[in-house]
Amino acid sequence: MLKIKLGMVGGGKDAFIGEVHRMAARLDNRYELVAGALSSNAKRAAQSALEIGIDKRRSYSSYKEMAAKEGKLKSGIDAVAIVTPNHLHADVAKEFLKAGIHIICDKPLTSSLQDAEELAALVKSSGLVFAVTYNYSGYPMVRQAKEMIADGLLGNVRVVQLEYAQDWLATNIEQKGQKQAVWRTDPKQAGRGGAIGDIGTHAFHLAEFITGLRANSLLADLDCFVGARTLDDNANILLHYKNGAKGMLWVSQIASGKENRLQIRIYGDKGGLEWAQEDPNYLHFMPLGESKRLITRSGSGAGPLANAASRIPSGHPEGFIEGFANIYRETADLIEAHRENREYKNLVPDVDDGLRGMRFVDKAVTSNQAGAIWQSLDH
Amino acid sequence: MLKIKLGMVGGGKDAFIGEVHRMAARLDNRYELVAGALSSNAKRAAQSALEIGIDKRRSYSSYKEMAAKEGKLKSGIDAVAIVTPNHLHADVAKEFLKAGIHIICDKPLTSSLQDAEELAALVKSSGLVFAVTYNYSGYPMVRQAKEMIADGLLGNVRVVQLEYAQDWLATNIEQKGQKQAVWRTDPKQAGRGGAIGDIGTHAFHLAEFITGLRANSLLADLDCFVGARTLDDNANILLHYKNGAKGMLWVSQIASGKENRLQIRIYGDKGGLEWAQEDPNYLHFMPLGESKRLITRSGSGAGPLANAASRIPSGHPEGFIEGFANIYRETADLIEAHRENREYKNLVPDVDDGLRGMRFVDKAVTSNQAGAIWQSLDH
Amino acid sequence: MLKIKLGMVGGGKDAFIGEVHRMAARLDNRYELVAGALSSNAKRAAQSALEIGIDKRRSYSSYKEMAAKEGKLKSGIDAVAIVTPNHLHADVAKEFLKAGIHIICDKPLTSSLQDAEELAALVKSSGLVFAVTYNYSGYPMVRQAKEMIADGLLGNVRVVQLEYAQDWLATNIEQKGQKQAVWRTDPKQAGRGGAIGDIGTHAFHLAEFITGLRANSLLADLDCFVGARTLDDNANILLHYKNGAKGMLWVSQIASGKENRLQIRIYGDKGGLEWAQEDPNYLHFMPLGESKRLITRSGSGAGPLANAASRIPSGHPEGFIEGFANIYRETADLIEAHRENREYKNLVPDVDDGLRGMRFVDKAVTSNQAGAIWQSLDH
Amino acid sequence: MLKIKLGMVGGGKDAFIGEVHRMAARLDNRYELVAGALSSNAKRAAQSALEIGIDKRRSYSSYKEMAAKEGKLKSGIDAVAIVTPNHLHADVAKEFLKAGIHIICDKPLTSSLQDAEELAALVKSSGLVFAVTYNYSGYPMVRQAKEMIADGLLGNVRVVQLEYAQDWLATNIEQKGQKQAVWRTDPKQAGRGGAIGDIGTHAFHLAEFITGLRANSLLADLDCFVGARTLDDNANILLHYKNGAKGMLWVSQIASGKENRLQIRIYGDKGGLEWAQEDPNYLHFMPLGESKRLITRSGSGAGPLANAASRIPSGHPEGFIEGFANIYRETADLIEAHRENREYKNLVPDVDDGLRGMRFVDKAVTSNQAGAIWQSLDH
Repeated sequence: MLKIKLGMVGGGKDAFIGEVHRMAARLDNRYELVAGALSSNAKRAAQSALEIGIDKRRSYSSYKEMAAKEGKLKSGIDAVAIVTPNHLHADVAKEFLKAGIHIICDKPLTSSLQDAEELAALVKSSGLVFAVTYNYSGYPMVRQAKEMIADGLLGNVRVVQLEYAQDWLATNIEQKGQKQAVWRTDPKQAGRGGAIGDIGTHAFHLAEFITGLRANSLLADLDCFVGARTLDDNANILLHYKNGAKGMLWVSQIASGKENRLQIRIYGDKGGLEWAQEDPNYLHFMPLGESKRLITRSGSGAGPLANAASRIPSGHPEGFIEGFANIYRETADLIEAHRENREYKNLVPDVDDGLRGMRFVDKAVTSNQAGAIWQSLDH
Repeated sequence: MLKIKLGMVGGGKDAFIGEVHRMAARLDNRYELVAGALSSNAKRAAQSALEIGIDKRRSYSSYKEMAAKEGKLKSGIDAVAIVTPNHLHADVAKEFLKAGIHIICDKPLTSSLQDAEELAALVKSSGLVFAVTYNYSGYPMVRQAKEMIADGLLGNVRVVQLEYAQDWLATNIEQKGQKQAVWRTDPKQAGRGGAIGDIGTHAFHLAEFITGLRANSLLADLDCFVGARTLDDNANILLHYKNGAKGMLWVSQIASGKENRLQIRIYGDKGGLEWAQEDPNYLHFMPLGESKRLITRSGSGAGPLANAASRIPSGHPEGFIEGFANIYRETADLIEAHRENREYKNLVPDVDDGLRGMRFVDKAVTSNQAGAIWQSLDH
Repeated sequence: MLKIKLGMVGGGKDAFIGEVHRMAARLDNRYELVAGALSSNAKRAAQSALEIGIDKRRSYSSYKEMAAKEGKLKSGIDAVAIVTPNHLHADVAKEFLKAGIHIICDKPLTSSLQDAEELAALVKSSGLVFAVTYNYSGYPMVRQAKEMIADGLLGNVRVVQLEYAQDWLATNIEQKGQKQAVWRTDPKQAGRGGAIGDIGTHAFHLAEFITGLRANSLLADLDCFVGARTLDDNANILLHYKNGAKGMLWVSQIASGKENRLQIRIYGDKGGLEWAQEDPNYLHFMPLGESKRLITRSGSGAGPLANAASRIPSGHPEGFIEGFANIYRETADLIEAHRENREYKNLVPDVDDGLRGMRFVDKAVTSNQAGAIWQSLDH
Repeated sequence: MLKIKLGMVGGGKDAFIGEVHRMAARLDNRYELVAGALSSNAKRAAQSALEIGIDKRRSYSSYKEMAAKEGKLKSGIDAVAIVTPNHLHADVAKEFLKAGIHIICDKPLTSSLQDAEELAALVKSSGLVFAVTYNYSGYPMVRQAKEMIADGLLGNVRVVQLEYAQDWLATNIEQKGQKQAVWRTDPKQAGRGGAIGDIGTHAFHLAEFITGLRANSLLADLDCFVGARTLDDNANILLHYKNGAKGMLWVSQIASGKENRLQIRIYGDKGGLEWAQEDPNYLHFMPLGESKRLITRSGSGAGPLANAASRIPSGHPEGFIEGFANIYRETADLIEAHRENREYKNLVPDVDDGLRGMRFVDKAVTSNQAGAIWQSLDH
């Protein structure tokens, strides 16, 4: 099997998410990281490249240069992972699309809805693979939930309870220079949304991914609880889904004691399902009128969709990196199908999912600014 | 110690809550149940009285007769427990107030806000003890949470996440004659609120009880998911508290797989607290920046308020009846103080708490009818 | 329904277990506590009687006097609860048996195997009701487990994993005068066993109660980890059951952090079951090759045996007192059947169960003294 | 950083553990898999090599040939991973030691104590790195537990409760040709121990690793519950540690419903610790007389030893592969230190740990055969 040649923009030293992408790319041996513009600081870029093992001739300090050169190299990269702050996603992506290079882009898609719309149009006209790393959709038990709902085990979905709560922004660490916090609380880099963009988009996507439902309106009550912050750090959101289901979404980065509590609970007229990211190998299924079930990853109750996304036997926990790696592995399948000119579709979140996330952010901010009133998500 | 002579209105055979009140009254040996109008059906009333051990001379088929006669008996009842459907609470209460008898009333206080306001005025002018059985406030670890917040362990409260989810109304059992369901889904007996009145009021009270905060506005998105139902069976509610804290409240009686999931989670700038009624002996405390704590009832971390509400050592679980019995025990303290003409105040929910619950129900219905928009709770 | 007139020996002020027996007796309104020898100290006995509401004419400072007088009273007690330290159980019981009074006796049955054998013989010849408060067998989900195994849902039982761990004796509190600790660590009052008698007997009984199996040999490795203690405070025990099943039993009162962790886990060739006393409303069932089940008290998966032992709906937790009260309620049924001269048998642990517990203690100590070698439990 | 050139013996298609080793080796980018004798079947070996991406010139069908040739190649492998059935470990290892190649060997070390002793001597005289993949010692929270005990947070350890329970051998799947089961239940390939060798050695090592204590005697009660099996599938073992601590170890592969339940619980005179492999990111700490703590991986309470073994922030679960990869990463550190002729020691289990595991197996079988009596582990 030919490995996919991968480049990376962003993700230099101390950038948490860059190393996650690299581990995810390595796990299944489908990629080879051969080029990078790991930092806009040339020295930092070079040093990071050295540490990571990228040949210095293919370490760039400008993503434009990288896109241009790699696009022309005989053995240039097939795909690029974009792991910069949000406001750069669109520009970086455009350069690589121009160069005919597939893209794996971190979320949220861009820093504005308009950027997202333009990018989506460009991606479609390019015909290239464009994956958005809504990585939580890669967890096996998320796939299990999706399959069970598609199979009708919950009946008609009535209620969706969503939450994504963290506490790392409970104090104003951005004032103390914590790098991750600085750009995420800066509207110029992050866009209109704070927590709703950074983590809310994950939850919003997850619900649609699992249920197969589309949200058509929302109402958002946003807060900045910490100091001089201007972007939301806590959000209470109501959702209406097209089939009549009702949703609540709590997003917080100031919930003292929560580490990375992404949780989804879904109730239909035949049963309920509950899953939490911090305990990802467990899916709770409550068929109405029967005793409750615990379905474990690779365990007796797991179905084909989940098993296809698992690597090791039940009771041997898989975690965040493995779930993330599923997105990479499946993107590799897409890229190979593209290479072989085969029609192929799988569960990897695409640019439309990314665009939808941006609309969610945009409408939530608009709703809040208007006094927490209802907004359509349809257009 | 002189036992308090107790009467009961409602709570005949097959009425779940009547037997709960009786067990709660018995547990600490502070009451003696000596009279009852256990059913409006005379035969049923008599049979229930016989089974419960109430002397047939003090078994009434009319609460008016009971109030009148017991009020005049030399050894007439000191207090009455009202456990009828909601729409009777006000009328029954008025009769006993007139007779100078203390009242223990189930929630919600009445079936309309107007009734509640009138009743509250009457109670105050009477000077009698009036307890509302928001029984969940009687749990020791609820008291622990209250004490910890009062002691400043959470700092300034920012976020309140509330839920009370059940599934017993997930299908239209009221059409099949399930007695509990019939009156709870009937606006004539239940009032304007369905699930929000039956269980939502518990959650709304619990949050104010624990945090010491007052909600000053709400927005409610109500649904009747099941059949021909006209009262809400699912409610998504946003709350604003006076100190700026924000809340979400999910109330459901159609959440497949949930039995009696009342849960409260509170996050302040110094820490978080989480408690769930189904596992009532555990309180989770997450001081910001430290490892998480599990405080157990009567365990090493429990404080005086919780310990005063506990009966047995840690690891020996107490449950719903014991929590309910705390309300009875503390109401007994109030009645004795009244008897001795002592000023005395404790944590027993009173008629104002009951009135507040009715305002919550009323405003939630109004909000929803207006398209899920904000409503003040202040008046 | 005629209430049973109950007396109590032991259980004065500050005695935890006496109050538990009283609450258990009150909960279902089947008993009336009318007499007591609550303490061997006359003043303390009188004061306790006053507080509890026992008429002073029926408060005794000697259990002999109490047995003699109550046996002759026209309305004397029907039954007596014995809640003294272990070494008094046998003598007290004998007096009341002589007086024709039914007995509810705390565990362990006596302080020596010989006493237990004599008492068992006496009970049988008396024809009276004799209940031993192995109260954990009264929990609804324990009954559920028993029923499921009897119904063959586990197939042939192969493995029994038992533990009962506490930490309240992790330091030498008996040296500081803690009353509960003083007599439990004193061989003169407790007998040959320390933790194995105090709590190990509960676990040993529970396993036989649930599985229906009999242990026929054991090997015990006992320790006194704390100071000058001479009775075991930690015990590692292996068990062989007659059907070939193998067991492990860990008993500890020095396991730092454990409150009252009685836990039983049973594995057969068709499935497994797990239950822990600290979370008594949950029973975990793992049918081999299927997804795991959570059966809740009064929930959809609960069967008739469990439901008969439950008082309130699922999700409304019942606890230790309710489980204990089941033993009292069922003993009331036995006493009434005796009164009416009916043959009747239920699940209340009897004197043979008590005797079996004493044999367990005796053989464990013998095994340990011989260097932790195997001992038969058959004789 | 120069990557370590790695070979592999065993681990062809369908071999679970081979792929685990490969993922573990890849995760941190410290190894390059360049050679293999993946199967003794030449065709299968070639096919596996092709799939994995090993150059066919370096795919061998004989480990002897591989050792000989790779030892002489200028760019031959630095290290070999041995992932064959147990009975081959010793012979394979000897060949590679002769060729001067470092070894990463799966557990148990060999299939007999004698083989293990010989191999240990050989390894020592070779001066080469020899890692045994007791991979569970690589979990961050296991490291945390080790550090906390070393720091005295538990005081003097008194009690060690160990269990490793699975259910995949609850029926005789070896008769149906399940490959993993066939060799594990065959004494010729597995050695004297069944479950105790396959998984018991992990638990035995883990306890010594975490506590720093040495077991000096054991007593084992072994069973073959399934069919014609001759090796143990369930083991109840008592342990004595040199400091006077007492242990219990339950090992089972027939415990219906258990997937991979490795659990360790340790109680000292100052506190207790509990950890379970299926929920590896959580460590429960119960300081005596204080409220219980939950320490999470990378969370506020985690210390340097745990943090050094973590890759991503708290709340982003790491799993089995990451823990396994820590053994690989740390073995890479050992190999580099060896290359640079530096003295260096870390926590990677070595041949002495492997030998100790074999002594555990050998003595357990001897104990059981003698009627479950005590055996010294000292010689």
